[in-house]
Amino acid sequence: MRKLKNEELNRKSVKDFRVSKKMPLIIVLDNVRSLNNIGSVFRTADAFLIERIYLCGITASPPHKDIHKTALGATENVLWEHVNSTADIVQKLQTEGVSVWPIEQTEDSTSLDLFQPEPNKSYAFVLGNEVRGVSQEVIDICNKALEIPQFGTKHSLNISVATGLVIWDFFIKTKP
Amino acid sequence: MRKLKNEELNRKSVKDFRVSKKMPLIIVLDNVRSLNNIGSVFRTADAFLIERIYLCGITASPPHKDIHKTALGATENVLWEHVNSTADIVQKLQTEGVSVWPIEQTEDSTSLDLFQPEPNKSYAFVLGNEVRGVSQEVIDICNKALEIPQFGTKHSLNISVATGLVIWDFFIKTKP
Repeated sequence: MRKLKNEELNRKSVKDFRVSKKMPLIIVLDNVRSLNNIGSVFRTADAFLIERIYLCGITASPPHKDIHKTALGATENVLWEHVNSTADIVQKLQTEGVSVWPIEQTEDSTSLDLFQPEPNKSYAFVLGNEVRGVSQEVIDICNKALEIPQFGTKHSLNISVATGLVIWDFFIKTKP
Repeated sequence: MRKLKNEELNRKSVKDFRVSKKMPLIIVLDNVRSLNNIGSVFRTADAFLIERIYLCGITASPPHKDIHKTALGATENVLWEHVNSTADIVQKLQTEGVSVWPIEQTEDSTSLDLFQPEPNKSYAFVLGNEVRGVSQEVIDICNKALEIPQFGTKHSLNISVATGLVIWDFFIKTKP
């Protein structure tokens, strides 16, 4: 099985990316601290044609060399916006008809394996700070909570891994 | 939706983890350079009860403070072994009946969304170096190649994100 060369991968140009139909999924980063994690989320968002990323509160914005190290240029393509308040953007998205779910361990959460996106509906997933997770204030105004089931000794996944996992799950559940 | 406290998450003790039934999945890291990535893979492997991790070639081993930063103690639970040659461990696993697949972009690869693990079969997924990917020499002796379909401008995902995504995919396709 010969490994493909980069030029054989048929990746999109930046111009083609901009006009491509996106997945109906927005990622909201609620006060994420690690620049590596932010960059890595951009790279995954590029790969799966995510609609937009909201960088909230202390979440750093491009351009930044440590975001670039893991994003590898994906910040040039994926639409993003920095906002101060995560709660404000959650409410704005909801008024636009977007269903907003924190990825978090809560009472009455839906386990990711049982989650089924409604057809023709837009979703936003909120991923939280590395230590504190998504803030309770934000969770309180979200539609529902989505929980990644976990069976080991630790309390949570790395935030860029968790983002990759929910994006892939959304992709396979909504692909034509 | 009240956020759960750590003590409400019913995570396993190290003792319970060790005797828990594992997923029939082994992760092989082929010359992975980043200590962050290695630690992050350990954390995901803990969450989904991965059988074992092989750290090959230049892939660093615990204990190491930069692995610990992202593994957060998962290296104490998940079984792991360092081996010099990735090819040697691939061949050893194959003689034990394990089906070994690089996660890589190759000719005749199987797209991850179409992959269906056979029941009662053990698998090993090989993830490669951040720049060079899985070496061609290793790919040549693997059973098949598994490719994560990607639709953006970049050539690959971050390696800890790719690992999380294939582990989640394996989990939902094999859960009882």
